[in-house]
Amino acid sequence: MSAVASRTPLERLFAPTSVAVVGASSSADKAGHQAVLALASFGGDVFPVNPRGGEIAGRRAFPSLRALGRPVDLVLLAVPASACVEAVREAVDCGCGGGLILGGGFAESGPAGIALQAELHALCDQSGFRVLGPNTAGFVNKEVSLTASFLPAADRIPSGSVAVVAQSAGINLTVSFLLEKVGSGVSMAVGLGNAMNVDAADVLEFVATRPATKSIALHLEGVVEGRRLYETLRRVTRTKPVVVLTVGKSDVGEFAQSHTGNLIGSYALRTSALRQAGAVVVSSTEELVAAAALMSQHRLPPRLRAGIGIMTAQAGPGLLMLDQLRSHGVSVPSLAPRTLELIRAELPPTTYLQNPVDTGRPGPSFPRVLSLLADDPEISAVCAYALHEPAALRPEEVLPAVASRLTKPLLFGTAGPRAETNETIAELRRRGLYVAESPEQLARAALVLAEDAASQARLLRDDPRPALDADVHLPREHDEHSVKQLLEALGVPSPRRLVCSSHLEAREALARLTKPVVAKILAQEVGHKTELGGVQLDIADEQALARALAKLDAIPLTSERRYLIEEMAPPGLELILGGKRDASFGPTLMVGLGGILAEALRDTATRLAPVSLAEASDMLDELRAAALLAGFRNGPALDRRALAEAIVSLGNFLVRHPEVTELEINPLRVYPRGVLALDALLR
Amino acid sequence: MSAVASRTPLERLFAPTSVAVVGASSSADKAGHQAVLALASFGGDVFPVNPRGGEIAGRRAFPSLRALGRPVDLVLLAVPASACVEAVREAVDCGCGGGLILGGGFAESGPAGIALQAELHALCDQSGFRVLGPNTAGFVNKEVSLTASFLPAADRIPSGSVAVVAQSAGINLTVSFLLEKVGSGVSMAVGLGNAMNVDAADVLEFVATRPATKSIALHLEGVVEGRRLYETLRRVTRTKPVVVLTVGKSDVGEFAQSHTGNLIGSYALRTSALRQAGAVVVSSTEELVAAAALMSQHRLPPRLRAGIGIMTAQAGPGLLMLDQLRSHGVSVPSLAPRTLELIRAELPPTTYLQNPVDTGRPGPSFPRVLSLLADDPEISAVCAYALHEPAALRPEEVLPAVASRLTKPLLFGTAGPRAETNETIAELRRRGLYVAESPEQLARAALVLAEDAASQARLLRDDPRPALDADVHLPREHDEHSVKQLLEALGVPSPRRLVCSSHLEAREALARLTKPVVAKILAQEVGHKTELGGVQLDIADEQALARALAKLDAIPLTSERRYLIEEMAPPGLELILGGKRDASFGPTLMVGLGGILAEALRDTATRLAPVSLAEASDMLDELRAAALLAGFRNGPALDRRALAEAIVSLGNFLVRHPEVTELEINPLRVYPRGVLALDALLR
Repeated sequence: MSAVASRTPLERLFAPTSVAVVGASSSADKAGHQAVLALASFGGDVFPVNPRGGEIAGRRAFPSLRALGRPVDLVLLAVPASACVEAVREAVDCGCGGGLILGGGFAESGPAGIALQAELHALCDQSGFRVLGPNTAGFVNKEVSLTASFLPAADRIPSGSVAVVAQSAGINLTVSFLLEKVGSGVSMAVGLGNAMNVDAADVLEFVATRPATKSIALHLEGVVEGRRLYETLRRVTRTKPVVVLTVGKSDVGEFAQSHTGNLIGSYALRTSALRQAGAVVVSSTEELVAAAALMSQHRLPPRLRAGIGIMTAQAGPGLLMLDQLRSHGVSVPSLAPRTLELIRAELPPTTYLQNPVDTGRPGPSFPRVLSLLADDPEISAVCAYALHEPAALRPEEVLPAVASRLTKPLLFGTAGPRAETNETIAELRRRGLYVAESPEQLARAALVLAEDAASQARLLRDDPRPALDADVHLPREHDEHSVKQLLEALGVPSPRRLVCSSHLEAREALARLTKPVVAKILAQEVGHKTELGGVQLDIADEQALARALAKLDAIPLTSERRYLIEEMAPPGLELILGGKRDASFGPTLMVGLGGILAEALRDTATRLAPVSLAEASDMLDELRAAALLAGFRNGPALDRRALAEAIVSLGNFLVRHPEVTELEINPLRVYPRGVLALDALLR
Repeated sequence: MSAVASRTPLERLFAPTSVAVVGASSSADKAGHQAVLALASFGGDVFPVNPRGGEIAGRRAFPSLRALGRPVDLVLLAVPASACVEAVREAVDCGCGGGLILGGGFAESGPAGIALQAELHALCDQSGFRVLGPNTAGFVNKEVSLTASFLPAADRIPSGSVAVVAQSAGINLTVSFLLEKVGSGVSMAVGLGNAMNVDAADVLEFVATRPATKSIALHLEGVVEGRRLYETLRRVTRTKPVVVLTVGKSDVGEFAQSHTGNLIGSYALRTSALRQAGAVVVSSTEELVAAAALMSQHRLPPRLRAGIGIMTAQAGPGLLMLDQLRSHGVSVPSLAPRTLELIRAELPPTTYLQNPVDTGRPGPSFPRVLSLLADDPEISAVCAYALHEPAALRPEEVLPAVASRLTKPLLFGTAGPRAETNETIAELRRRGLYVAESPEQLARAALVLAEDAASQARLLRDDPRPALDADVHLPREHDEHSVKQLLEALGVPSPRRLVCSSHLEAREALARLTKPVVAKILAQEVGHKTELGGVQLDIADEQALARALAKLDAIPLTSERRYLIEEMAPPGLELILGGKRDASFGPTLMVGLGGILAEALRDTATRLAPVSLAEASDMLDELRAAALLAGFRNGPALDRRALAEAIVSLGNFLVRHPEVTELEINPLRVYPRGVLALDALLR
């Protein structure tokens, strides 16, 4: 049993040496029969379990797990939902490694199923037993030739080096089969289903350790433990590239919940957290497949702005690629004078010899020009596109040799009559070349490499994580003044102000402060001050103050009546800066254009806290309104540094104070020198 | 010769009965040889022309076009650029139908080439002779089995019902070969090259008349005569769906100009004009191919919001499709109670029976449920997705029969092991079904149908074009007051104001107007009033007026000094509304968020003028800031109608006054009732 003892529960579950099928059936149309059949190619031991014993699909069936007399690694449960708790209990008692529940009828199916899943979950938590599913089609592990699934086509999933981890069985298979179309395949393919106690983070952690897995394609619907997924991804993406497809751009909540019983959460938050953790986020299964297949072959070294070299035998496709890369902010840099000189010596002068390099009809110099382009110090990867024209270029004869000499990825794209190109493309892929079948596919591949290289560079840049602030105490009161004091302690200033309990004190404050001032009602119970007339602006003298106070006094209050007399801040760009604790992802930060526009235009950037100063600055760059910070219309540049520092402080504060649900500064006014918090709230 | 006389020059060029190749060569590596070879399958007469005569590729060569003794329809010029003018002159003299210049060395190649192209262009204009190219790979017309090209693979382009019209030869071939991958093919494939005197509009007009063409795939780089293309598209899209891919999202100008010698122009303007003309605009060759192939089979009746029904055998893919359609604003409507009732009777209750309909594993009821979904009155087209699972569903046996019974398009999507699905998909396509190979491809197909249906509905709604305004006279002066008078004549009000020549008149104006007022310097020579201190706000009394006038008097002027005293407009949402004459597209309209934000956020909508009231309203909906118009944060709704009327008026004015280059209202303030033009300029 020492072999068992040295392996983790997830290793036993996902890379078992023995499998039992509880609910194995001799009826050909039952899942319990399909599951046994699917194990035909598995090299380990297979034990059908059926109370009636007998023989199933040519294997001896056992009446129970106990009757096996040994703890199998993986127990595949093909029994009704109602029988699962008992079956898992037996597996636990027998010392089995892990379980897989194929069927539905749990949290995705209504109150009774939710209760059943809760019972099962509790049992697993108590015993430490790990169960994949329920409500999943299972998984495939090509390393051990294991198909743990009842889906008939699962055993025909092509073998390769991409690990597919999908919440949905349907996506799992769709993605796996699409990988075959691009000449790739899977090392593992895992359907998470309801992800009860084996979730995406667990599977990522597992597959990241497997040498057969070179890249990971992840599909997510809702994420229950977002923070854990984030932390796991930050580790995993260092060594294995991860590409993610996630749904929920639009409101699909009802259908999604019926599918896996999980809430879908915010798309913007989820995708920015995934990117922040170093994953490449895509928006279709095709993109997921193309990116994962690509990154199972190529990955660039960390670099914030990787440069892409484009070489094309036809100008039109080159133009499409250039346009696509530039419009996604990918650098297609000018080539060094020396590179241009060498390339010009190789090609006729009628073509466009910059980046892109338009070679015109490919000639014998094609491979040489490719090498020259790749050798340019600004170039991190080369895209070459050429229509199928065997009289001018035989890519299968030329490109593998060039690629093997280069130290940078060479991506190739082509199109031609199918009967002729299919074999060329297959041969190139067999020889390890990435081949795209359209100019945009080729450009997207370069985009993915550049995005991943930038993510990696950011992870390195931001690590070790920024130091947390010195301890700041939470105010007992959450009124505006107290929250502003808190912000000041965090290094975010507010206008000079005085708290007054009477009109007399307010007049004294007016005398002491620089005019004009603002008079506000100060009471935690008043949520929407402005709407209630609780904010009176532009007070320059005692008459105006008296009128303002009279208006404030008209607002009914149950608590003590106080006033905040505050210097009126000069005009500036108004932003909103908020920190919020998300149920799944924990502390999050948001910055956006302030005021009424913030809501209407939704021009915001989001991150999980904490963030570094550089990451905070990236958030600002992400805003469409970023141009306003840079000194718009010849105006002076605004103080990005102060703004970024405020973001960092807010994030560190949220991390340090788990009892805080929300801290929002709205508006935060930004000036050429410094920022001012004009209003703020704490929850 | 009567057959010649009754055919248009473009018919003779693109559907010739005879072809001459000038510059035909017996050297196998010359374009003039390839071109003769490519004519092997052409059913009409082929005449190689070479001064040395002899035999070329098995055909007798003639020393000149004149020596043929008959006017051929199409003259294919495979001679150097410098010899083209003379060759075209001979073709004109011989009464030939049209020409095709394959080679480059014209406007795309620098000053000498620009001059050469100009000479050629002038010759064509004088003679009425039409020439495709120069700098193009030619064209293919499957109707007459004609390959007029020197590209070796051009004769292997698959036959079908999509007309491909591409500025670039490389895109022409890429798109044609990608069509083969989705089981489709071309009726014609035309490379425009430099589009000297046969441009996209000409070819569109021609292919739209050909019964073999069911849909058109158009690729554009720059557009020289945008307005003509727009007007042509408005006609063509009524009968043949047109899908367009155009470059220039990012700055690719230099490379683009080197390619076809044309400037690229504004991407935003070009794409909105194309959409306005009823085309579907896509952003990759794959999307171009998928949409054109789809629309060669299916087109919805005109409908502003077509409803899509989704049916899926796996929830995950259904969720992706729903998300994609919803996030693109496509309606996936609730089903009628009667539809739901009927569907529920067919399926187990464990699945999600709304729209999407999640059937679970497909059973015998699959076709019946499909029909029920399609019969729902809200549904215009049905998308069905099912993984390859032949034991449960044989799509090739079930779907063609269902599709033939339905009056609405049925689009199918699937994925599975290639060896098994390739044949299924091919068979379905042979039987006329549209098949997508991923959930997103399927959703994109539905999106294309919905977008086209909406475009058609808008074209019908907006036709006949709105009546032009009664005549409005252009002011001689273009100062603010005169331009505002013009706007008032157009129905766009400004604040009450008085023009004053002295301080005394200004004081009288202050007395007569409602206070506070604004004092502005009034002089056409002052461009940026605000920056120069030429706008003084918030004047309530004579002292303030005196101070304001003193400031205005400090601005140096060469013309007569006048003041505009104007009632200060109440606060409101500020927009910018501009009309501009584009060199290619003629009169255009733009509306956007006003002030400094307009420039920073580029939240604008653009159309070609004139526009209808409904189209103007669509422009407002297109703004990200649209929510601000609808009564944001419980505020009253703003006067969209007045805003839309202002847009319409401005458009009509621009159309009626070709001498006006630009008329811009900035800001235009919008209120719950009415709008006010606060400043305006005319050029």
